[in-house]
Amino acid sequence: MSHIKNLIPRTVNPDIQKERSAASFDVQEFAAWWQGGLAKLNTKREIERVLFDDQEDGYGLKHEYMSHEEVYNCMVKNLCEAAPKLKALQQRLNPGGSDIWPACLTNVQATGLFPGNHPLATHITMFVDVIKGQGTPEQVDKWAKAAENCNIIGTYAQTELAHGTNVRGIETRADYDVKTDEFVLNTPSLEAYKWWPGGLGHTANHAMVVAQLYINGQHKGIQMFIVPLRDAETHMPLPGVDIGEIGKKLGMHAVNQGFLGLKNVRIPRTNMLMKYTKVERDGSFTESPASRVNYLTMVYTRCLIVNLNATLLLEAATIATRYSAVRRQSPIELNAPEPQIIDHVTQRLKLFPEIANGMAYHMAAEYMWEQYDQTVLEANNGKFDRLPDMHILSCALKVLASTDGCAGIERLRLSTGGHGYHIAANMSNIYGNAVAAITYEGENTVLLLQIGRALVKAWANYKQGQPLSASYAYLASSMQLREFPKWDNSWQCILKALQFTAAHKTRIAFENLSERMAKGQSQAVAANNTGIELTRAAELHGRQFVCQTFMEQITGAKAKKRSQALNAVLENVLELFLVQTVLNNMSDVLRFINLTEVDLRSLQKRLELSLEQLRPNAVAICDGFDFHDKVLNSVLGCYDGNVYPRLFEAAKRSTMNQKPVQKSFETYLKPLMKSSL
Amino acid sequence: MSHIKNLIPRTVNPDIQKERSAASFDVQEFAAWWQGGLAKLNTKREIERVLFDDQEDGYGLKHEYMSHEEVYNCMVKNLCEAAPKLKALQQRLNPGGSDIWPACLTNVQATGLFPGNHPLATHITMFVDVIKGQGTPEQVDKWAKAAENCNIIGTYAQTELAHGTNVRGIETRADYDVKTDEFVLNTPSLEAYKWWPGGLGHTANHAMVVAQLYINGQHKGIQMFIVPLRDAETHMPLPGVDIGEIGKKLGMHAVNQGFLGLKNVRIPRTNMLMKYTKVERDGSFTESPASRVNYLTMVYTRCLIVNLNATLLLEAATIATRYSAVRRQSPIELNAPEPQIIDHVTQRLKLFPEIANGMAYHMAAEYMWEQYDQTVLEANNGKFDRLPDMHILSCALKVLASTDGCAGIERLRLSTGGHGYHIAANMSNIYGNAVAAITYEGENTVLLLQIGRALVKAWANYKQGQPLSASYAYLASSMQLREFPKWDNSWQCILKALQFTAAHKTRIAFENLSERMAKGQSQAVAANNTGIELTRAAELHGRQFVCQTFMEQITGAKAKKRSQALNAVLENVLELFLVQTVLNNMSDVLRFINLTEVDLRSLQKRLELSLEQLRPNAVAICDGFDFHDKVLNSVLGCYDGNVYPRLFEAAKRSTMNQKPVQKSFETYLKPLMKSSL
Repeated sequence: MSHIKNLIPRTVNPDIQKERSAASFDVQEFAAWWQGGLAKLNTKREIERVLFDDQEDGYGLKHEYMSHEEVYNCMVKNLCEAAPKLKALQQRLNPGGSDIWPACLTNVQATGLFPGNHPLATHITMFVDVIKGQGTPEQVDKWAKAAENCNIIGTYAQTELAHGTNVRGIETRADYDVKTDEFVLNTPSLEAYKWWPGGLGHTANHAMVVAQLYINGQHKGIQMFIVPLRDAETHMPLPGVDIGEIGKKLGMHAVNQGFLGLKNVRIPRTNMLMKYTKVERDGSFTESPASRVNYLTMVYTRCLIVNLNATLLLEAATIATRYSAVRRQSPIELNAPEPQIIDHVTQRLKLFPEIANGMAYHMAAEYMWEQYDQTVLEANNGKFDRLPDMHILSCALKVLASTDGCAGIERLRLSTGGHGYHIAANMSNIYGNAVAAITYEGENTVLLLQIGRALVKAWANYKQGQPLSASYAYLASSMQLREFPKWDNSWQCILKALQFTAAHKTRIAFENLSERMAKGQSQAVAANNTGIELTRAAELHGRQFVCQTFMEQITGAKAKKRSQALNAVLENVLELFLVQTVLNNMSDVLRFINLTEVDLRSLQKRLELSLEQLRPNAVAICDGFDFHDKVLNSVLGCYDGNVYPRLFEAAKRSTMNQKPVQKSFETYLKPLMKSSL
Repeated sequence: MSHIKNLIPRTVNPDIQKERSAASFDVQEFAAWWQGGLAKLNTKREIERVLFDDQEDGYGLKHEYMSHEEVYNCMVKNLCEAAPKLKALQQRLNPGGSDIWPACLTNVQATGLFPGNHPLATHITMFVDVIKGQGTPEQVDKWAKAAENCNIIGTYAQTELAHGTNVRGIETRADYDVKTDEFVLNTPSLEAYKWWPGGLGHTANHAMVVAQLYINGQHKGIQMFIVPLRDAETHMPLPGVDIGEIGKKLGMHAVNQGFLGLKNVRIPRTNMLMKYTKVERDGSFTESPASRVNYLTMVYTRCLIVNLNATLLLEAATIATRYSAVRRQSPIELNAPEPQIIDHVTQRLKLFPEIANGMAYHMAAEYMWEQYDQTVLEANNGKFDRLPDMHILSCALKVLASTDGCAGIERLRLSTGGHGYHIAANMSNIYGNAVAAITYEGENTVLLLQIGRALVKAWANYKQGQPLSASYAYLASSMQLREFPKWDNSWQCILKALQFTAAHKTRIAFENLSERMAKGQSQAVAANNTGIELTRAAELHGRQFVCQTFMEQITGAKAKKRSQALNAVLENVLELFLVQTVLNNMSDVLRFINLTEVDLRSLQKRLELSLEQLRPNAVAICDGFDFHDKVLNSVLGCYDGNVYPRLFEAAKRSTMNQKPVQKSFETYLKPLMKSSL
């Protein structure tokens, strides 16, 4: 590295500075609005100051060159060092709350703190929550507090090697031994090994084991058992516990997902969670109806996933947009200077739709959180009306935010060309951490089929003249139209068109299902055979919902709290989002709505115009998401835009560049070169 | 691992055995046809026997746990050990040929031999070829033979840190010094560092440096220079040569891509390639017109990329299909046994279309190779008519095969659920190696724009009554129709519909471009503003071509050489491919062709039916691709279908499982757990 000294300039790249100066709105106002108010923005920045200010340079890149084992040990170190800091910050800024500790272990700051992820997320989000939700008061008292203080570390062990989606099929069993007042846990086969729980490999010393309960050889359904796994002092696996990590994955390198086999492992009867189900000393078994509150937990988890995926998508969009403002390539006019690549129209089409997608999913999640709070209030008064709709909508949102989010992240990575293929761009790491969400918490296709079945059920109700709940109301209003009204180019018209299309897709799925049943197929077989149409109807159900909520959040009463300048930018994003959504679904829309050539050309023009209008504000919008440089962790996406010096510095950090000649030269390469093959 | 012994059964999983027994065709016939004849199949199997039989278990997984540096050194070892074996095999099976050495360093066997890829591909494919193509006879004699024997190892250094697509913008310069009869090479800035050449980091000791030539301060265009980089004995970088690897990437871990800065590096005048351009001793400069044969090289390279991407897609399809035959989950009828997941219709939709895509791109490449051979023959007689069409079609194929191929690989990975997220599935490694093709050898969007501009040019010719060359003939025949004829459900009808749609998309792009120029925009600015429509027209141009060639290859004269049983299966795949292609492009098709509700329902039925018909043959078709287990390198895709034991064995191989307790426990985790946070 002899020729280049003092790599990173202390100045901001003028191309990106120019973008900021030309923005039509106040970035601070955007940032405060985006974080839910100025106070929240300030708290966020204070947290990041405490967490990131003393991080050494290259912190986020270092782990990419570590061995699998080193990444794990390093992330545990980061975790154990961050924990007391976060706890102290919580005490200082919001005593008694949980918005800093443990929240920062799973939110946007975590992606900066733990670029290789970490093994405590399952402990924090699942182990503690399940005890609180399903344990008796004595169990909560005994276990939950110890877990919250990290005196014990747990995981949630449900999935097995051969069973994920179909929980009923799991094979791990717990037999009650009335003589000793214990459960005896066993893994009957290789396929029944627990597989995937986060932190199970080498971190957790307890697991919440989900198993088939047997009393006197009689099956009593699936129950949950707290099983100690490792010695509290030595951390060695306890007798009968076969434990380890499942191996490396494409992302989440330090999550330490593990496997678990149990052989005659005995635990006290009181280690079974017994809030709703009880096993008495004499082996008698009682079950109270499962609480509908469980549904709320699922809604809650899925909203978190939507937030996470929208955030990761917007991180990628910020990286790619900043890079596109700095990178200059390929003159538009022959012999003219090379433009910023953000001025190539096809590049805008790769960037701005993802900004719009990320914002739309974020706003949809905001709406869901408001609904969620309302539903919790009502549930406390025994009112559960909203729950089924909420459940289905949260499934649809989870599916779309994860599928679109991941496809978007990869499109954005590709938009940065070769440099996006380098790990220092951090795009591949973001993708690796995001894409797991397509599979976990309900695999997306499985969820779409569930939504599709709910849709045809709602449709059947509608056909029988029964009233529809709020989220299905558009089925009725769409079908009451003989045909779709004249296209008037309004946002409302686009929304109605998507609803009309979604309604007709549900109709077709219903008709195909009915036709198959009329030919003698059972409902289940017919539903499988109609799977493609069911999932497509489900997707459109979700899309019309996202369009509707995004529109309401931008154009509704809340707009009055924002400046005109900010609203103008948000409306630009909304316009882009609605136009791209209807264009991307045109294969279905055109089946039911007779758009003219003039209408279609006008939509294409609107797409091009909204991209052009967003152009001068794109960098500033990304600034408004207020991602800390350490969170983005990307040489292409730094606030200062010094892309090339940072790429070069990242290369210097490669472990291979610490030696001019690699050891394989003398041993293998030189002999080959001398051998004249 | 106390409970489980003798992990991998010696028997084939009965679920996958059942699939093989039920196939309606002879897999051996398929395999021989697929390889281009029985002799080629036998050669392929002999190569694989020699290469893979003595590989230890876990060979393909081991590199995933190595450090970045170890992966490199290990792949160099593999390379240097394989080279004499391959050379000997070449001598034995086909003396004087190149189909084994060096071909096996870049073809399907290489993915098994080098799971982390290797640093010699650029040497083999680019360095040697460029010398042969652009060097004088003396230069070829001096350098090409030494390079072919690996006495010297080279790379091709064109791309710079700030310039990839726009080669004219590169800044590395070579000044002729008439006093010493030398060129003096310099890297004028950080941005001008060479960046990306394979093997440049620590492997190559020569580079073909692409630089701006100056003679007496006068610019003489871009030329190529052979520059020694490292000492032949010590491998240490030579004076003035700043060299290293660029760092880790998301795939191609052992390709050892490097950077290169040059400071007053002097080389003899005769190190500039001078077949077409000459610099004399006195500095006089002559240029003969660049050979159109260069275009043929580009066509050749792009056909290779299409083959590679089709192969990688079919590897992924084989893995996912075999897994889907073994995995059982989620009863279709409540309380029925769990079916093989391949029996869920939505799963079939994830698998079979990718088999069809992979086969279609493979067949399109076959067609291109035939055309290529013909064109080479004609070119030798000074006839270059086919070249422009070939060039554009090869661009389109490269774009579609890489874009669809990578999206397909990822869809297939996701179809295997959580287990596909594990690196032992090898899906992420396949993706990482495949996806670079979207960016290299012409970034896909840049190529689409190039195709789009060729299309509107052809369109303008058509409008002026000039004749169209063969690959654009459908523009004329489509436009001569007032409207699309009645839909008759034939394959020909689907092809004509895609051509009709592609023609009208070209028309619209042309109209939008003309409209903008009429409003005063220059052609270049108007083309940029019409970028979205141009790329879409380009994509459809490619799609109709793939449909056409696939149809010709399956239903044409060659069908007579195959058995009826094999043809029936191939026609099933073709039906699926055509139906899915027209359905996936329905947003454009419906704009120009008035398909009725009956037509659309019939297409949907055909999609579902073709998936159902393919179901019993899916595993056997994948067997027919004849991928060696070591090439697939996947616990989910092994021929024997013993998925769960292999997953478990892969977990055992994780470096972290060699110790029951990780070192961070005593140092960090235990203090945290005892501290009562």
